[in-house]
Amino acid sequence: MHYVSHLEGAIDGTVLPFGQLANLHNGRPIWVRYHLDRIRDAVTPADIARRPPSLWRYRELLPLPLDVEPVTLGEGMTPLLPCPRLGKELGLSRLLVKDESQLPTGSFKSRGQTACVSMAKWLGVTRVALPTAGNAGGAAAAYAARAGMECYIFMPADTPVVNQFEAHLYGAKAYRVNGLINDCGKIVKDGAERMGWFDLSTLKEPYRIEGKKTMGLELAEQLGWTLPDVIFYPTGGGTGLVGMWKAFQELLELGWIAKDTKLPRFVSVQAEGCAPIVTAFDKGERFADLFPNAKTVASGLRVPVAVGDFMILDAIRASGGLAATGREDAIGPWMRRASTAEGIGICPETAVCFDVLERLVKDGTVGRDESVVVFNTGAAPKYLEALPAELTSLDKDHIDWAALGG
Amino acid sequence: MHYVSHLEGAIDGTVLPFGQLANLHNGRPIWVRYHLDRIRDAVTPADIARRPPSLWRYRELLPLPLDVEPVTLGEGMTPLLPCPRLGKELGLSRLLVKDESQLPTGSFKSRGQTACVSMAKWLGVTRVALPTAGNAGGAAAAYAARAGMECYIFMPADTPVVNQFEAHLYGAKAYRVNGLINDCGKIVKDGAERMGWFDLSTLKEPYRIEGKKTMGLELAEQLGWTLPDVIFYPTGGGTGLVGMWKAFQELLELGWIAKDTKLPRFVSVQAEGCAPIVTAFDKGERFADLFPNAKTVASGLRVPVAVGDFMILDAIRASGGLAATGREDAIGPWMRRASTAEGIGICPETAVCFDVLERLVKDGTVGRDESVVVFNTGAAPKYLEALPAELTSLDKDHIDWAALGG
Repeated sequence: MHYVSHLEGAIDGTVLPFGQLANLHNGRPIWVRYHLDRIRDAVTPADIARRPPSLWRYRELLPLPLDVEPVTLGEGMTPLLPCPRLGKELGLSRLLVKDESQLPTGSFKSRGQTACVSMAKWLGVTRVALPTAGNAGGAAAAYAARAGMECYIFMPADTPVVNQFEAHLYGAKAYRVNGLINDCGKIVKDGAERMGWFDLSTLKEPYRIEGKKTMGLELAEQLGWTLPDVIFYPTGGGTGLVGMWKAFQELLELGWIAKDTKLPRFVSVQAEGCAPIVTAFDKGERFADLFPNAKTVASGLRVPVAVGDFMILDAIRASGGLAATGREDAIGPWMRRASTAEGIGICPETAVCFDVLERLVKDGTVGRDESVVVFNTGAAPKYLEALPAELTSLDKDHIDWAALGG
Repeated sequence: MHYVSHLEGAIDGTVLPFGQLANLHNGRPIWVRYHLDRIRDAVTPADIARRPPSLWRYRELLPLPLDVEPVTLGEGMTPLLPCPRLGKELGLSRLLVKDESQLPTGSFKSRGQTACVSMAKWLGVTRVALPTAGNAGGAAAAYAARAGMECYIFMPADTPVVNQFEAHLYGAKAYRVNGLINDCGKIVKDGAERMGWFDLSTLKEPYRIEGKKTMGLELAEQLGWTLPDVIFYPTGGGTGLVGMWKAFQELLELGWIAKDTKLPRFVSVQAEGCAPIVTAFDKGERFADLFPNAKTVASGLRVPVAVGDFMILDAIRASGGLAATGREDAIGPWMRRASTAEGIGICPETAVCFDVLERLVKDGTVGRDESVVVFNTGAAPKYLEALPAELTSLDKDHIDWAALGG
């Protein structure tokens, strides 16, 4: 029992069957399509509100059959936190942060992994592999462990040390590679036949996007089935942005948000050291070239080529939004500034968002009375490398109170 | 508007007034007491069930007046995760982990901090200070930032690097001290007058325990207002254990759990390198001596003396439980073994619990069909030092598939 009508090639609309393993179609990602009319008859927002606070409360809008137990680590709904102090500093009257750091393994990647690992398990997979710039590897390792699957992870050698730790902790077969995430992706692709693993790469299977779209469903529910004016979203592989846009279309068609709802404008944020989507957006192109010499401490943004580039760019443009870069040298300072202002641990990718947000408020692109939601996609302490923290040493036997400010 | 009847000195039952700043009474902690009869009339478990999934849903059982906004980072209810695979390995039919790592700042410390910082703010405090063995400092820094307060943190020089990072991230005035947590505590005490800070040390103000008791309230609610047979709890300062025992008494008196409920036996777990409570328990004493040369990689257990020692020991004994130590050299292996078995990132303190649990199942102290809840008190990646993770390097241009197991 499920509400999936079919799968659909995103590049050409080809109808594909549901219920068997799928990766790409014509080298491009695959959408999951639902019988939304049947879902409309089966469940209401009031029903959803009575369910446990987990992304699985949107069960009918997820591909896993209703009678199959998901592979879950108890991923709760993440809080949508008002940020009045930081808003005031930026000149915004309604600034909110959706804090994804409170998910299992400390990042938004868990949304995608609970969905795709659940589906892979249902479809008989026992060994998975993926490339990762950081948090996806930790999440995949955890969910694969939860599912009792073998997990191979390939990560750039300069991946944050915490992500390497996670892969080891959860018993994954994890490797450091002398390259970038796309080099790691090639290993996963090349090994598929010989190693017999299922490729869980971003957007290379249809279900991570379904898990990620719950960011959009939750946001709508938490705002009383309305949506904000603008969403700032740090964009690496782009699954979340694409997923949220899909969620908004489904909510419109379901009638769970009003037919005349003005959908949010997406501001897709990348780091100046790795900005393939911004480059393509600025050129007016639908596909992005590989970004040369990708380099940024915001490891989740170190994605020089995205297989879903056209889906990201389509969504940004359809939303009336834009793509923009933040400054590399602003990352550490913005992590500390935003975290100190509101007590929310801001990750480097989200720090880049704040750098762009400040600029766009100043130049009027974002209005001072617009409601703005910024996604904090991971726990800041997973990025020790991004913010050196050298604390002052004290001798317990000789405290200089004046030096402490006393 | 609140339901607090009075404060009460834990050592002698002295009635103390509510509504003003309080630290210790006769050098010992203070309980918060409620008009439970009025709470019984005002709210039911069914009302609670309809509220947002946050520890603030137990609002009537918390000290903050109902019309005062709490200082919150959206601390959700943490999942209670079945662990069938690990249970089977240990010979248990009903093993559950309560995963506190999904709270803000990645540890159970956020429960205490949202409560005590909310109360401190309400009572006019603008500067706080505390000693910390690790996660409490990160949580205090975050909640103080959220409240707009100044926060001083003193931590042993060998505190995990992630905790040092957090203190800096949230803008706290944080210092590394050449000593243990009790040495840090002395600095906080000595500086109180000169520095004008409010002392937020574990159990040295009355409200952290009220926040921590929500672990017990949530546990009961998640089990349909019943309780497990045994609770394994890693014990540093002991606030959580004491708080849960208090919660169970309050639930009994409210009638939210059945009058004849058999309360859980506490197994209070410490590391062999720092076990003051276990030592006192074994000797049959109510107060614990300072544990000499405290040393363990489970930094949250590196608490050689606890001001609430008698409260901890009273609760363990009243529950029919016990205190026991786990082996230092089992910590890393248990972190990886338990995390790999269930996909839950197990922290060092909880790894010690599993070491003790395995032993107590083998010797029959814990029955194979008893329901056992183990608290996972923090996110494993906050303890990089506890589990070295040296991943294998791969050359992207020369993959040896056979070496990968292909």
